[in-house]
Amino acid sequence: MQEIVTLEGHIIDSDLLRRAMSRIVEEGAEFEVQEFRVGRTNEEPSFARLAVRAADPHTLDRVLEALSYLGAVTALGDARFAPAEADGILPDEFYATSNYATYTRVDGQWLEARDQKMDCALVMREGEPRCVKQRLVRAGEAVALRGPGIRLRPPERPRTADGFGFMHHEISAEVNKSLAIRAAAQAMRDTRAEGRRIVLVVGPAVVHSGGDVALERLVRSGWVDAVLTGNAFAVHDLEKALLKTSLGVCQTSGRALEGGSRNHLWTINAINRAGGVVAAVRAGSVPSGVMRALVETGKEFVLAGSIRDDGPLKEVITDVLEAQSAYLEALRGAGMCLMLASTLHGIAVGNLLPASVRTVCVDMSESVPVKLANRGTLHAVGLVTDVGFFLGQLEAELARAS
Amino acid sequence: MQEIVTLEGHIIDSDLLRRAMSRIVEEGAEFEVQEFRVGRTNEEPSFARLAVRAADPHTLDRVLEALSYLGAVTALGDARFAPAEADGILPDEFYATSNYATYTRVDGQWLEARDQKMDCALVMREGEPRCVKQRLVRAGEAVALRGPGIRLRPPERPRTADGFGFMHHEISAEVNKSLAIRAAAQAMRDTRAEGRRIVLVVGPAVVHSGGDVALERLVRSGWVDAVLTGNAFAVHDLEKALLKTSLGVCQTSGRALEGGSRNHLWTINAINRAGGVVAAVRAGSVPSGVMRALVETGKEFVLAGSIRDDGPLKEVITDVLEAQSAYLEALRGAGMCLMLASTLHGIAVGNLLPASVRTVCVDMSESVPVKLANRGTLHAVGLVTDVGFFLGQLEAELARAS
Amino acid sequence: MQEIVTLEGHIIDSDLLRRAMSRIVEEGAEFEVQEFRVGRTNEEPSFARLAVRAADPHTLDRVLEALSYLGAVTALGDARFAPAEADGILPDEFYATSNYATYTRVDGQWLEARDQKMDCALVMREGEPRCVKQRLVRAGEAVALRGPGIRLRPPERPRTADGFGFMHHEISAEVNKSLAIRAAAQAMRDTRAEGRRIVLVVGPAVVHSGGDVALERLVRSGWVDAVLTGNAFAVHDLEKALLKTSLGVCQTSGRALEGGSRNHLWTINAINRAGGVVAAVRAGSVPSGVMRALVETGKEFVLAGSIRDDGPLKEVITDVLEAQSAYLEALRGAGMCLMLASTLHGIAVGNLLPASVRTVCVDMSESVPVKLANRGTLHAVGLVTDVGFFLGQLEAELARAS
Amino acid sequence: MQEIVTLEGHIIDSDLLRRAMSRIVEEGAEFEVQEFRVGRTNEEPSFARLAVRAADPHTLDRVLEALSYLGAVTALGDARFAPAEADGILPDEFYATSNYATYTRVDGQWLEARDQKMDCALVMREGEPRCVKQRLVRAGEAVALRGPGIRLRPPERPRTADGFGFMHHEISAEVNKSLAIRAAAQAMRDTRAEGRRIVLVVGPAVVHSGGDVALERLVRSGWVDAVLTGNAFAVHDLEKALLKTSLGVCQTSGRALEGGSRNHLWTINAINRAGGVVAAVRAGSVPSGVMRALVETGKEFVLAGSIRDDGPLKEVITDVLEAQSAYLEALRGAGMCLMLASTLHGIAVGNLLPASVRTVCVDMSESVPVKLANRGTLHAVGLVTDVGFFLGQLEAELARAS
Repeated sequence: MQEIVTLEGHIIDSDLLRRAMSRIVEEGAEFEVQEFRVGRTNEEPSFARLAVRAADPHTLDRVLEALSYLGAVTALGDARFAPAEADGILPDEFYATSNYATYTRVDGQWLEARDQKMDCALVMREGEPRCVKQRLVRAGEAVALRGPGIRLRPPERPRTADGFGFMHHEISAEVNKSLAIRAAAQAMRDTRAEGRRIVLVVGPAVVHSGGDVALERLVRSGWVDAVLTGNAFAVHDLEKALLKTSLGVCQTSGRALEGGSRNHLWTINAINRAGGVVAAVRAGSVPSGVMRALVETGKEFVLAGSIRDDGPLKEVITDVLEAQSAYLEALRGAGMCLMLASTLHGIAVGNLLPASVRTVCVDMSESVPVKLANRGTLHAVGLVTDVGFFLGQLEAELARAS
Repeated sequence: MQEIVTLEGHIIDSDLLRRAMSRIVEEGAEFEVQEFRVGRTNEEPSFARLAVRAADPHTLDRVLEALSYLGAVTALGDARFAPAEADGILPDEFYATSNYATYTRVDGQWLEARDQKMDCALVMREGEPRCVKQRLVRAGEAVALRGPGIRLRPPERPRTADGFGFMHHEISAEVNKSLAIRAAAQAMRDTRAEGRRIVLVVGPAVVHSGGDVALERLVRSGWVDAVLTGNAFAVHDLEKALLKTSLGVCQTSGRALEGGSRNHLWTINAINRAGGVVAAVRAGSVPSGVMRALVETGKEFVLAGSIRDDGPLKEVITDVLEAQSAYLEALRGAGMCLMLASTLHGIAVGNLLPASVRTVCVDMSESVPVKLANRGTLHAVGLVTDVGFFLGQLEAELARAS
Repeated sequence: MQEIVTLEGHIIDSDLLRRAMSRIVEEGAEFEVQEFRVGRTNEEPSFARLAVRAADPHTLDRVLEALSYLGAVTALGDARFAPAEADGILPDEFYATSNYATYTRVDGQWLEARDQKMDCALVMREGEPRCVKQRLVRAGEAVALRGPGIRLRPPERPRTADGFGFMHHEISAEVNKSLAIRAAAQAMRDTRAEGRRIVLVVGPAVVHSGGDVALERLVRSGWVDAVLTGNAFAVHDLEKALLKTSLGVCQTSGRALEGGSRNHLWTINAINRAGGVVAAVRAGSVPSGVMRALVETGKEFVLAGSIRDDGPLKEVITDVLEAQSAYLEALRGAGMCLMLASTLHGIAVGNLLPASVRTVCVDMSESVPVKLANRGTLHAVGLVTDVGFFLGQLEAELARAS
Repeated sequence: MQEIVTLEGHIIDSDLLRRAMSRIVEEGAEFEVQEFRVGRTNEEPSFARLAVRAADPHTLDRVLEALSYLGAVTALGDARFAPAEADGILPDEFYATSNYATYTRVDGQWLEARDQKMDCALVMREGEPRCVKQRLVRAGEAVALRGPGIRLRPPERPRTADGFGFMHHEISAEVNKSLAIRAAAQAMRDTRAEGRRIVLVVGPAVVHSGGDVALERLVRSGWVDAVLTGNAFAVHDLEKALLKTSLGVCQTSGRALEGGSRNHLWTINAINRAGGVVAAVRAGSVPSGVMRALVETGKEFVLAGSIRDDGPLKEVITDVLEAQSAYLEALRGAGMCLMLASTLHGIAVGNLLPASVRTVCVDMSESVPVKLANRGTLHAVGLVTDVGFFLGQLEAELARAS
């Protein structure tokens, strides 16, 4: 038995054609290329029509579904829907979204999904298809089912040789970072020029490594629209502002000093007594730091709670689902995201971003960049380097240009 | 100006004397040893009396406080207390606890603190000193202040050459793990013999690596009293139970397959429709796996939410402070803790355990074991190895012996 | 200005077409697809003819050369040659080989190069093109120049879904290794069935991790034709054989014991006094171990010297160029190569192997497998796992089957 | 049965007493402290006399030998010697040296060993004890045996709180490197002030990361007396000097470009044609780079061969034993050693240095610094960071001060 599928777009340079062919063979099926038109120039899209054959309908279905996630289109038809059985309970045949732009065919019309993000249901809400987290789907809402009428447009790799688009996914530890930092700075300027937001996800190592000084400057010079982080980063930054000497020692040794974590708790206590971060800054009791800069410049910050937290600070959102929603709100309109030494929150944000957002992930180990790169975006760059040095050089690069 | 401090116990082989001397010099102070009696045999404690001198009172205070966290005692006297100013707000001079056994002098009597854990306030509650998380201290409660009347008893390294006590903190990637696994198995038997609990903290890699098969057997043969984990581990385990083939592929490739994460969401949907993990297992719809074994044997499990979660499953505690409290409850009476390929939850639990609990931390990278080892316990062992192989061999070792 | 290039073969699924297009754009040139025929079935090769355009001849040359290493063919014509200026000194325009099968056109005939390996000159010797290391080219020999008349055949990814061919390049730390180990065992059986050799490259961690026991069994049951290693592995293996207790301690602790390295020197001394490894084994003074098994079964081993070596053992080749040549000899006829916890020698061997040899690289960190995978072979698999466990399970897998 | 041992010096703060006690118990023996005088002030040494008891003479011997490597002294008496049996063959009871200063008692006189380094024989040559590599001992020379008459003086941790001496062994990835870099710069100035040499061991990543620019400046401003490296670093540096553009691309992508390694071979060819590095620089054909700076300033460099090498360059010493000897010569008079992103040569040099040389090891992964730290020196600091940034900041720090 066989089925005809078509692929369209920059399917060669976005690697989709190869992945589709591989997947067919891996699943034990076969293909025949019936038609193939390759884009003659840098600008033209390509087109392929394949006949996919399998020994049994089960295999064929599995292949076709896998291909649909690569943007392949089979039979034309409207999307099928079924109602959610209860709040947060989907029909079993629900379609699960990816981070690629998604189109749903309703009454012969292709509608683009709103709030594109991965691992969601595709729900008709107010007449439009939307990506909705499973738990937020309401009983009775029309949930798109897998099968016909859903089409993806994977991001295409730009065919112009600009710095960011053509950087490789992984910039290894052994490489000169200057070019990558210059390209990241340019991408920040491009994002600004497009009127889109720049969001930073930061981990505690930004403070430990001394990168906080440059980050504070980036905030004050307007390069940061929102900071997504947790309790630890905020407390470290505030502790450094309030209790300088002790942190000086900590930075020398890199170890927990005897009794040193009291300063951490003391800071939380002092800030919470003042009514939280915003209140403490407004009362003038925070002499320096990233958190102060965010409050004073009116930029957004979201502190998501984690089970490791001490305190936490008053502004921390302790319910993880609420925190996830707050992150999502802060990511609206983002054109660029920098993830700095943050495993937990970096991966959380990676799950929430559409593939079209330029992403730079900086970490001392390869594992976080690799996890993020596996999400299928062509706009994600991982830099294996020291985040303190990275921030210093990025800030200098942006300051130089302006 | 000077102050006299005394140190007592196995202060040489627990490395406390050296750390005390180092700290004095690092802080720019000086010491003179006035009296020193070293334990003559393996069994006898040692005793040291040092005069600590510093140029100014500020330095002296800093040194003395640092020494107090190493168990050094200065002037004798009752502990001082002040009331918490409000719910969750401590007096600024509060004493911050460590994970060492702590004694508080009240009316000339040394009382041992209950619920020993680090980074807490020491609060008099129901006539006893207790370690209470900052946020759980209530307005008006008597909070111990730093200064006199608080004494620590750091754990002493056993002077007998048994396997577990004398294993080094870090068992590197290049070492034969058989001896360490044998020692871990023996420590599990010892814990059982003492009537104490064995708690496991597990991450998703336990399933990915194939370690779930051995873990299920360990649960069924009674070696596990509680499993502390998050949404991801539970869903992976259940997905493997419900949708075998797809996971088979995943394990071959180690990559997210196109459309593969739908199975993850489908599993959450199916389990939540049934009313959660316990209900699904009781309804007979989970054919295998660790979660099923936990439910069927009536063992405890706690699923702590994180901002990365999909779903989550019904049993997941989404408020991180509630989850922390639930972890704490599950750790009561623990004599041994195995942390298996879990960064987030492993470190969370490391913060909640007293130093006396035997801890084995298994991970493919050195960073998690190193972070845990820096917490000052002499009973923590880190093994850098493949968790799938570790669990298989541990289970075989325990099965062989019984 | 423009040039016409053609690409032929499985250029989509071997990723060559995408890389060619990317490279053209990255270099600032443009392409137009003039003709494209895709293989209609799994079996048929594809064909592409591109017009490449650049603003200046320098850019065009750079692009064409890059494409030639991807197997692209430009103008048809015989290869050009120039004599080596002196021993080890090539004409500046020399062609540098890759690890792909290479064909040279001489008098209108395509001749396949012998001794295919990367980073060599292509020299006519005895009427045939051969890959010869730069330093071994003799004055006056005809050296092929870059330009026309050289054609590559990159290995094609098998289109059947067998285990080894379709394993992904990197098998991450978090994945169940059982399937990969089963595929590796099957590839060993296939290699045997083809009458080709199985060569192992091993590092000291094979002994430290306890993998030596399984390796000795593999040697004795005939699965190993040659072992390429250095002084350290051999001495560790012999020290374990001669001085068991001391190594027992070492394996417990994973640290250099006080005075422990004396055993290392003592072993070298004892073996060299006996006249070397072979003489010591023949004299019956080595009671166990991998080295003994190699000598007794008459299998080849090559010990390459390094600047870190103590001793070294008599059999160690201290000149690195001689050692390289000895490795090359031992690799002749290899159909499979296992690289086990060996950074230095693993990468050395990776440089000497043609892309067609099945390669499995086992290491606890991702960096060695990643470096090897970047060499462009589709038959290299990296496993991030504990080599001790790996060898145990591989040996069990092979023993079970036979 | 029992034996009396004494330990003297700063045995508490150098951690020797604790390690001695641990080792006794680990080996299954017991101890009793007969006398203990602790240094009363920062300046005074301490003294301990222990009775060590074991059940059998074999255990007692093993304990005593282990203690001797910690500087413990047993029975007083002259050292015993036996002649080397043949060139490179020692008597079985030979004493193996450590990297601590070693004294040998000859005719009632304590003589300090020359050429102190680890894993050597202690040979009387020209009337003095010398540390001689096993293979360089000549037949008939008097080789010291283990037992009485050998005394170590482990380096003592300075009791003043200066930057370098009190830096912790490992400066983790998460720490602000500025303080460590300032301390390293100060140690370089101190070394200069003492009239001792500064030796650098460098790996290829110094070039890849862009650190070569700062390194060239350090050489030209006189901060480097010798560079120990291999073929790869030298070729990369020369290739960057000769063929800029191609390296520019390489640094962007971090990957081997198609045909890119031809430039590597081309560089070797060009340099060797000119007669080697020195000749090429003198002929004016190398426009920039570290190698050029070394030749022009007349500083020493040693290129040690490895089995991975292409070429190699004419100056490369291909025999590893000769290379080892050349490294040793270059290390004479060294007061400080910087090891920069070099695994193979860094560890080789670590084996050749006495413990008294200040050592800074910079690498992106923890494993190299950890291996070096395990060698027992209190003057070794490991920095986990990006070597390119490190060199830039070190050079700026040294330039600022002068």
